[in-house]
Amino acid sequence: MNSIVTPWEVKGNIDYNKLITEFGLSKLDNKMIKRIEKHTGEIHYFLKRGIFFAHRDMNFILDEYEKGNKFFLYTGRAPSGHTHLGHLIPWIFTKWLQDKFGVELWFQFPDEEKFLFKQELEYDKVQEMVYENMLDVIALGFDPKKTHFLIDTKHADIMYPEAIKVAKKITFSTVRSAFGFENDQNIGAIFYTAMQAVPAFLPNILEKNKKPRPCLIPHAIDQDPHFRVSRDVIPKLGYYKPASIQCRFLPGLAGIESDGKMSSSSGNNATIFTTDDAKTVKKKINKYAFSGGRETVEEHRKKGGIPEIDVSYQWLTFFEEDDKKLKKIYEDYKSGALLSGELKAILIDKINEFLKKHQEKREKAKSQLNNFIYKK
Amino acid sequence: MNSIVTPWEVKGNIDYNKLITEFGLSKLDNKMIKRIEKHTGEIHYFLKRGIFFAHRDMNFILDEYEKGNKFFLYTGRAPSGHTHLGHLIPWIFTKWLQDKFGVELWFQFPDEEKFLFKQELEYDKVQEMVYENMLDVIALGFDPKKTHFLIDTKHADIMYPEAIKVAKKITFSTVRSAFGFENDQNIGAIFYTAMQAVPAFLPNILEKNKKPRPCLIPHAIDQDPHFRVSRDVIPKLGYYKPASIQCRFLPGLAGIESDGKMSSSSGNNATIFTTDDAKTVKKKINKYAFSGGRETVEEHRKKGGIPEIDVSYQWLTFFEEDDKKLKKIYEDYKSGALLSGELKAILIDKINEFLKKHQEKREKAKSQLNNFIYKK
Repeated sequence: MNSIVTPWEVKGNIDYNKLITEFGLSKLDNKMIKRIEKHTGEIHYFLKRGIFFAHRDMNFILDEYEKGNKFFLYTGRAPSGHTHLGHLIPWIFTKWLQDKFGVELWFQFPDEEKFLFKQELEYDKVQEMVYENMLDVIALGFDPKKTHFLIDTKHADIMYPEAIKVAKKITFSTVRSAFGFENDQNIGAIFYTAMQAVPAFLPNILEKNKKPRPCLIPHAIDQDPHFRVSRDVIPKLGYYKPASIQCRFLPGLAGIESDGKMSSSSGNNATIFTTDDAKTVKKKINKYAFSGGRETVEEHRKKGGIPEIDVSYQWLTFFEEDDKKLKKIYEDYKSGALLSGELKAILIDKINEFLKKHQEKREKAKSQLNNFIYKK
Repeated sequence: MNSIVTPWEVKGNIDYNKLITEFGLSKLDNKMIKRIEKHTGEIHYFLKRGIFFAHRDMNFILDEYEKGNKFFLYTGRAPSGHTHLGHLIPWIFTKWLQDKFGVELWFQFPDEEKFLFKQELEYDKVQEMVYENMLDVIALGFDPKKTHFLIDTKHADIMYPEAIKVAKKITFSTVRSAFGFENDQNIGAIFYTAMQAVPAFLPNILEKNKKPRPCLIPHAIDQDPHFRVSRDVIPKLGYYKPASIQCRFLPGLAGIESDGKMSSSSGNNATIFTTDDAKTVKKKINKYAFSGGRETVEEHRKKGGIPEIDVSYQWLTFFEEDDKKLKKIYEDYKSGALLSGELKAILIDKINEFLKKHQEKREKAKSQLNNFIYKK
């Protein structure tokens, strides 16, 4: 099955190396990882394991950083439903970058995007989800002094005046080819990419007293078409071309081959939300997580499982930070010493341990919202 | 020459009766004028002389008014340069409607529109012109208690959230056919019509405590394509379909046959700005105003002038309120008693008398701005 990767649709078994070529990205190779380590003092396991796998202009970002010109981070979440575990991956890495480099983060909540792209989605539902999604971001522990939330509709008076400057330099032909639009696309969806471009340079306008700073965008690979378009435009407006660093998707529970990423909107696929309780998580993983195990216990003990296609194992590569533990799980599963049910139990414990803490922090986040939303 | 009438281009000798059919408007006939007079107590000379010549749903507006459900007015100005006399025509009539019906006016300054449609126009220049244009609107004497200015970029936090709801219901195909867009149109221009739709229902959102009210839009005929599109969409959002009333253009000084409307951007045409001094007005009219007079004084005395193609006479139909005076000028010019130079002198006096007062009020307007700009 051929794969599809756009900001609105991800399907099929994705060949990430092929995407590097197709999208014109640079591979996040060992040399680059070493260069990052020079400043961070450690290598995040997302880098080690190729979860963040590609970039654009990271060398420029580090050149500037080494000259004393700090970048700012920009990432985001287009609200449409509750946050699921897949959404957290780029944010967890973004927090690590914020901590290690001591930089500002501008976090966009484009609350018009999914509304414009999903026929049935209602505006009020999105507004509810803006709130819910903000709690998840705060719960990850971003520095409130260095983190600024931009909500497109609430901050439109500072964003729209810049978006029109971007929009003036992007034609329908360009978005048609970048996003595969047809003539029946609505005019809000056509305009939207201009709003997504704005946070990549807006901090330089809002903080005019500071020296212009470059922008680094950590994001899941499906968002790349937006930034391919805006990287051409932003320098024409007199700002640095934004750099970016891309991660792959947390696979859907139903399996790596049938689903590119976990999605809460595709019906054939169970999703774990950050608000799920321990019992629900256990049930979903036991019921849906595609197994790389054999048909019978006997066969499994004899031939061993296949961690490469086992979703529980794959999820542990995203959530088990300890390399040694992960390696042992891999070997035990491959040898047949670890059964599929046992592997699932490890994942269930891991996820529930994570979610227990996350949900506590999520509750506390309710009183912290005002420290995060950018004050005009 | 065939005529072109779009929000961005008006060319040729316009057949307004043909536009009524083409655009699907209703003629502003005697019956409608009488119905308006029932409430206003007098007939504005713009109605009598067919300067306002067409409408959509005026009967509905008056039905509601007679039931005690007052409409609100909505008109606007897309800033790109100084206000010229042609711009004032719909506003003068709008003020009359406000006074006679005692209704609120929402006045939009879409400061992104011309920026998006004119390649060379710079954002900062537009911002300067927003200020200048606002002074002209205030100078016309609108009631500050009942008049609210909306500036698209400044009020984007209240307008953009509504514009996306409009935009979701308009496809590229629709704007392509309504405005003649090609694929090389920029995505801001494609989106823009959604912003122009918003003031036609926004007051019902901002003033939730009041009963929903219908909207009446007085405007020059070139803006009709916007409202043709938005009239289809706005009822789907749960608001009244806006009604409208259309005026023809003040002809360009260079002549009725070569120019559809006075334009400050077309190079072959002198324009009179509200900021022009008396000497400049005199010079422009004497130099550029197309004459319906004869080649020699002798011939003129013998055959008489042709008021129908004489720009000075045509302008007096817009600026000389006194029907008797206008009739005498018409007859004297037609008979040859009045020479072209004398007719021009009458117009020069009329315009300079108007501008003298206007410019005084324009100066005073500088201290009144804050009473007019809508407070969020």
